[in-house]
Amino acid sequence: MKDTITRATVLVEALPYIQKFFNKVIVVKYGGNSMINDTLKKAVMKDIVLLTLVGIKVVLVHGGGPEISSMLKAMGKESVFIDGLRYTDEVTAEVAGMVLAGKVNKNLVSLIHQNNGKAIGLCGLDGGMIQVEKLKGEVDLGFVGDIKKVEVSPITMALDNGFIPIIASIGADKNGQIYNINADTAAVAIASALRAEKLISMTDIRGLMMDTNDEDSLISRIHIDDVPELIEKGIISGGMIPKIQSCVDGIRCGIKEAVIIDGRIEHAILIELFSDEGIGTLLYQ
Amino acid sequence: MKDTITRATVLVEALPYIQKFFNKVIVVKYGGNSMINDTLKKAVMKDIVLLTLVGIKVVLVHGGGPEISSMLKAMGKESVFIDGLRYTDEVTAEVAGMVLAGKVNKNLVSLIHQNNGKAIGLCGLDGGMIQVEKLKGEVDLGFVGDIKKVEVSPITMALDNGFIPIIASIGADKNGQIYNINADTAAVAIASALRAEKLISMTDIRGLMMDTNDEDSLISRIHIDDVPELIEKGIISGGMIPKIQSCVDGIRCGIKEAVIIDGRIEHAILIELFSDEGIGTLLYQ
Amino acid sequence: MKDTITRATVLVEALPYIQKFFNKVIVVKYGGNSMINDTLKKAVMKDIVLLTLVGIKVVLVHGGGPEISSMLKAMGKESVFIDGLRYTDEVTAEVAGMVLAGKVNKNLVSLIHQNNGKAIGLCGLDGGMIQVEKLKGEVDLGFVGDIKKVEVSPITMALDNGFIPIIASIGADKNGQIYNINADTAAVAIASALRAEKLISMTDIRGLMMDTNDEDSLISRIHIDDVPELIEKGIISGGMIPKIQSCVDGIRCGIKEAVIIDGRIEHAILIELFSDEGIGTLLYQ
Amino acid sequence: MKDTITRATVLVEALPYIQKFFNKVIVVKYGGNSMINDTLKKAVMKDIVLLTLVGIKVVLVHGGGPEISSMLKAMGKESVFIDGLRYTDEVTAEVAGMVLAGKVNKNLVSLIHQNNGKAIGLCGLDGGMIQVEKLKGEVDLGFVGDIKKVEVSPITMALDNGFIPIIASIGADKNGQIYNINADTAAVAIASALRAEKLISMTDIRGLMMDTNDEDSLISRIHIDDVPELIEKGIISGGMIPKIQSCVDGIRCGIKEAVIIDGRIEHAILIELFSDEGIGTLLYQ
Amino acid sequence: MKDTITRATVLVEALPYIQKFFNKVIVVKYGGNSMINDTLKKAVMKDIVLLTLVGIKVVLVHGGGPEISSMLKAMGKESVFIDGLRYTDEVTAEVAGMVLAGKVNKNLVSLIHQNNGKAIGLCGLDGGMIQVEKLKGEVDLGFVGDIKKVEVSPITMALDNGFIPIIASIGADKNGQIYNINADTAAVAIASALRAEKLISMTDIRGLMMDTNDEDSLISRIHIDDVPELIEKGIISGGMIPKIQSCVDGIRCGIKEAVIIDGRIEHAILIELFSDEGIGTLLYQ
Amino acid sequence: MKDTITRATVLVEALPYIQKFFNKVIVVKYGGNSMINDTLKKAVMKDIVLLTLVGIKVVLVHGGGPEISSMLKAMGKESVFIDGLRYTDEVTAEVAGMVLAGKVNKNLVSLIHQNNGKAIGLCGLDGGMIQVEKLKGEVDLGFVGDIKKVEVSPITMALDNGFIPIIASIGADKNGQIYNINADTAAVAIASALRAEKLISMTDIRGLMMDTNDEDSLISRIHIDDVPELIEKGIISGGMIPKIQSCVDGIRCGIKEAVIIDGRIEHAILIELFSDEGIGTLLYQ
Repeated sequence: MKDTITRATVLVEALPYIQKFFNKVIVVKYGGNSMINDTLKKAVMKDIVLLTLVGIKVVLVHGGGPEISSMLKAMGKESVFIDGLRYTDEVTAEVAGMVLAGKVNKNLVSLIHQNNGKAIGLCGLDGGMIQVEKLKGEVDLGFVGDIKKVEVSPITMALDNGFIPIIASIGADKNGQIYNINADTAAVAIASALRAEKLISMTDIRGLMMDTNDEDSLISRIHIDDVPELIEKGIISGGMIPKIQSCVDGIRCGIKEAVIIDGRIEHAILIELFSDEGIGTLLYQ
Repeated sequence: MKDTITRATVLVEALPYIQKFFNKVIVVKYGGNSMINDTLKKAVMKDIVLLTLVGIKVVLVHGGGPEISSMLKAMGKESVFIDGLRYTDEVTAEVAGMVLAGKVNKNLVSLIHQNNGKAIGLCGLDGGMIQVEKLKGEVDLGFVGDIKKVEVSPITMALDNGFIPIIASIGADKNGQIYNINADTAAVAIASALRAEKLISMTDIRGLMMDTNDEDSLISRIHIDDVPELIEKGIISGGMIPKIQSCVDGIRCGIKEAVIIDGRIEHAILIELFSDEGIGTLLYQ
Repeated sequence: MKDTITRATVLVEALPYIQKFFNKVIVVKYGGNSMINDTLKKAVMKDIVLLTLVGIKVVLVHGGGPEISSMLKAMGKESVFIDGLRYTDEVTAEVAGMVLAGKVNKNLVSLIHQNNGKAIGLCGLDGGMIQVEKLKGEVDLGFVGDIKKVEVSPITMALDNGFIPIIASIGADKNGQIYNINADTAAVAIASALRAEKLISMTDIRGLMMDTNDEDSLISRIHIDDVPELIEKGIISGGMIPKIQSCVDGIRCGIKEAVIIDGRIEHAILIELFSDEGIGTLLYQ
Repeated sequence: MKDTITRATVLVEALPYIQKFFNKVIVVKYGGNSMINDTLKKAVMKDIVLLTLVGIKVVLVHGGGPEISSMLKAMGKESVFIDGLRYTDEVTAEVAGMVLAGKVNKNLVSLIHQNNGKAIGLCGLDGGMIQVEKLKGEVDLGFVGDIKKVEVSPITMALDNGFIPIIASIGADKNGQIYNINADTAAVAIASALRAEKLISMTDIRGLMMDTNDEDSLISRIHIDDVPELIEKGIISGGMIPKIQSCVDGIRCGIKEAVIIDGRIEHAILIELFSDEGIGTLLYQ
Repeated sequence: MKDTITRATVLVEALPYIQKFFNKVIVVKYGGNSMINDTLKKAVMKDIVLLTLVGIKVVLVHGGGPEISSMLKAMGKESVFIDGLRYTDEVTAEVAGMVLAGKVNKNLVSLIHQNNGKAIGLCGLDGGMIQVEKLKGEVDLGFVGDIKKVEVSPITMALDNGFIPIIASIGADKNGQIYNINADTAAVAIASALRAEKLISMTDIRGLMMDTNDEDSLISRIHIDDVPELIEKGIISGGMIPKIQSCVDGIRCGIKEAVIIDGRIEHAILIELFSDEGIGTLLYQ
Repeated sequence: MKDTITRATVLVEALPYIQKFFNKVIVVKYGGNSMINDTLKKAVMKDIVLLTLVGIKVVLVHGGGPEISSMLKAMGKESVFIDGLRYTDEVTAEVAGMVLAGKVNKNLVSLIHQNNGKAIGLCGLDGGMIQVEKLKGEVDLGFVGDIKKVEVSPITMALDNGFIPIIASIGADKNGQIYNINADTAAVAIASALRAEKLISMTDIRGLMMDTNDEDSLISRIHIDDVPELIEKGIISGGMIPKIQSCVDGIRCGIKEAVIIDGRIEHAILIELFSDEGIGTLLYQ
């Protein structure tokens, strides 16, 4: 009995957080360990079904690098890297599309249904959702897409009909050529187009820290105007620079706030949303 | 951190219960200690706002005997009792209406709003909701109403517009004469008319017990066909007889199940709905 | 037969007036003799049901000073007056809320239903409709509310569902403390928020007159810019000053026009709306 | 002032009748003197606009024999009669269609608009509303239609969009050949298809009378089972036999009741609907 | 088999044109030979039903000069012409209204239904659609209307309910007096009010030609700014001047483009809409 | 010009066929050569976009055996066959799901968009659409699904929002295990659940023939009651037996009719739907 009372208390304490996000759109960029480890994966699915039931509109965006690599390997295809970044030739683009939209995506749809949720798996090609051109950077990375337009109608159709939209980060250009898209970039573009209340980016780090070796030095909140200084100081560095930068751009384009959370913690999404302090590093304007 | 993880786990464990009652109508007959004690009262309000947020359609039906008595006393009016039951003369009926619909009811509405919920306070007169005739029993109890018809449109209008309907158990006859109505009876009639998923009746006892002195002898579930035998054996006795009998009638008329819970336990409603074992005595068919 | 022909002629003559107000919102501030005298009361109810049937959206706002006084007296509570204005202590505020929302209001709802109309009785607490702060004037009058916000959704919900909203002029502050509100002020605030076509204020005088002793000197129409001059000249004086002033403010905030009519005349509302000349003093912009 | 009070009283007395027919469909078969005399015509238009405003759904069905005759005459075309009934050859059918749908019909539409109503003029060809075959009787009357099907969607579309549907009684067969249709028959068929609350048939007689020379012998109500006996007795005779018979058939097919009123009385429709006794002879089941 | 394959190919080639006009409003001004010759008439009807089925919203506007003349003649009424333009006296206006709205219009409705389409025949009087004043020109032409307002609700009601609106070009002034209206003018006014995608005007010429004797000199496209120069040069001359001028005005008021096509070519409407080059002379901005 | 006239004539001749299938659901089972040959593939896409534009609701169901085989081969995985039927082990099931839902399906979606249509690619896992159990036959074929339930809401959601649903024939059991499903079976089950007007099955044969060597012996129509006899006679034989049998079952469960067409003919779908004689062998009841 004591246990059930504690349980009730916890539920009641969640009340103000539920009220805060009621009927709001939250985009979750799903990736890293939380997508590999089975326990974490199940916890994420449960979190998302729960959020849906309490009236929060969750959109899941995912990539799936490791699965692509493993399929390429199974097909005996050599991966090519330029300056540490994968070069996406035509075959790789096609395999990436197939693996993300046909395997990773549908597997997530299936998991949602096993938790009694309702999901629809889509990719950037469905309903012409993500329209890209070839990304033009210093280095030619092949068929990597630069998002030109996001058509939200397939996503809002799913949300309005009570389905959780799960979106694989691939797109196509005007000629129907398939492109791989960075999942962070796709999530930011989708969240901007939906004018999301929050973008939750699941990573494998604790968050941004003043001192990488000291978990207690976690920075809870950063105003987006302070980002350049933090980059200069080296506190934001390496792979976090483009990730943070795309969040900043997204916030400037309509996302209300973005948070980087540690996907290695079970139920990290719920903890982030249902506590005052949150669990990761929040970017706000 | 450990705490927030526990919290998340509890939330996730609530998932199947939320799914079970999603979009279903639950009628709560509110009364007894849970309506007098301030801590319990606040807990009930929080429970109801939470249920509303997770997509459950809650209707609150209440009486308020003690408040009527205290107002009559303040007005210097003597109460008359016949065989232990209050005799409701014309003035008493009018005072009951005023106190229930104008004081108790609006106070509950106000409490819901202080918990960031949205409520509308109604009584059986609004929209012609509860139409009564004079109750004809062995003893003449005055203006006590026998419900002839429940018009649900004011209730469903409130639910469809996102308001929690809070309903004072008074009604009127064809000539507009006001009548006091037993709150248990009103709750059953409303729940039947709404074909509610569940009627939760808040009382000041632990539930039905094989041995009244032994709380561990609580009977968790009773098939309504077994009620006559339990009455005969004296396990259902005294004031519980009409209460249980009206639940049985309600289940025969469209309520899916009814449960008698102990309103003295904080968050009893949540515990009842969000656990397998429940907290009181369930009547089912 | 001659009679029925006259009747038909009258109905046909009403045609242009019905067309004028079709589907428009009219707020009636109900009070004075028309609320005390039973014949007048019934006539008002019939008028309102008729207006509703011909497609006019009527909202009734009422106070009920005499009923409050009589209840306080019944409870043996002394009334306190400061400069002729009632001082509302905590108990008085609570009694006012109870009497207005639980007795006067529900009695009006019941009368509408006896005339085959459909009404819902609400007060400023329902759906958080009237949010107040303590009125700060030269004299401290206790719990008398200064309206800060009107939430119209409970009112428009009732109108859209075919119910006449009847509203008791009480409100609450952020902490849920109940306040008495001047019914004229409440009616003006509600009519402004609804951008009403007309505010009809029922009083116990013939209207504004050039010479108070000469009923033929009734002023039919006043442009709101001429009000200050009329106050200066003493033609608007005493209790009419705040009443007229709040109408002027309301017209500036969205009410199309306001009219003060003599509630002592049977069917005054119909006569006002269904004749060219009207029956009282019209304020317009 | 006295006058306006009388007026208000009349309006209030109309209340129960308005309530009775609120949102109900009433089909008026318009014809005879009320369609020729200008004063009567204007009165009918006003009646219909008023009924529409108080929420009654009026459908007007009309013929126009005299206008057809006068056009044929203007065209120098001889009319042919067989046993006193007009023979409708191909040219006559075409002229009838043109005159009814293009002149009489649009003139009525125009009159409604001059009374600030909104009307749409249709004929049996619009939306395939009235589908006929050649009437097969003892005598061949040429292109006179026997109604096979009524498609109500053009009528309900008009009603749902706030337009009064005014319908000329012509139809077409499968090959598009135009046919003249008896207006009484058309009105009955339309009222049946709409399951009308009432069919009002405007004639040039006082109603059915026990003694044709004594207006006081008017029969107010006839159960349709008593019609055969009244025909046998000669109380229903001549042209009234098919008119009454088609009403009886209509009542058997879904019209709630039918009434024959004296169109020579100004505002006969309003008097019929807004008085207990009515004005003509009612047929009921 | 070869034939059916060709047929399929043709259908597929129509695809981009269908997509271009999908859900767009196209107003067809119907007149000239295409309205007299039976083969052409049937082809027009088929074209319109087809366009409706592929999701294009077609509105047909028509006059009917020859039919008016022939009816006047049948009635033995002399036509009066001033400078070659018909003078419309009161009788002529009435006859015009009757013939256009009652004969020509309903005949077109009937033809649509014989092709399994659904149409509603309206004129400018229905729903107060076309409100006119007397046209004031150099010469008094009698009851010829100058359009002051177009009320589109009867037209959009028909379109939204799946009916093709067929509109006779007559109107009325405030007093209900009927007026004849030039059908080109009416079509332009209706197309402007509907903000039509295209106005198709059916004429009896090949289009505008550089050299009237050389069909190969057809001008396919004219920018409306170039119209004055073409008039000056005499390439647009005679009766084409007001026709073209009203198109130019319409384009300035909201029509996207207007095209003059040769109604003597079977299926001219389909050919115009479903080919790149079109068939007539297009006016654009 | 002559060409465009022919084109218009063809379009007009399609009219009755368009009317026949307007707003009806047609399920196309896509497979064989029409899915391999690029010219045929493009023709099918154009046909489907055209059907959608003329108001026909097309659902595309596909398998993709050759693509699965080729992927398995690329992964170096040996295919196992039992009695000529592929054995689907766990890896094969997973690869089949990935290839069908991620490659074949999305490629079709992309082609529809390149023809300016709008499509959504789904598989049996999305929205829990196809729920299966392990197929129990004489031979164990591994993870081949026996359809237990079709949940149509994801399909009708797509249709109602203007998207063409393209469905890969894979499903899952209660535990989320993925299963390969015979595409014919899936198409029949989906068409039955949608109560489709027609199921079009694209094959690589001319249809059912009395004499397989004589194309002129094509059987145009077969009543489903005659199927057993045709099987007995050997006219329906081999792989056609289960294909025809599942069509017969589908017709018994709600499909109106089913047709087997020769996918090797360009625009076979259009020819089938838009001609009286059709192109293949029709099964009807």
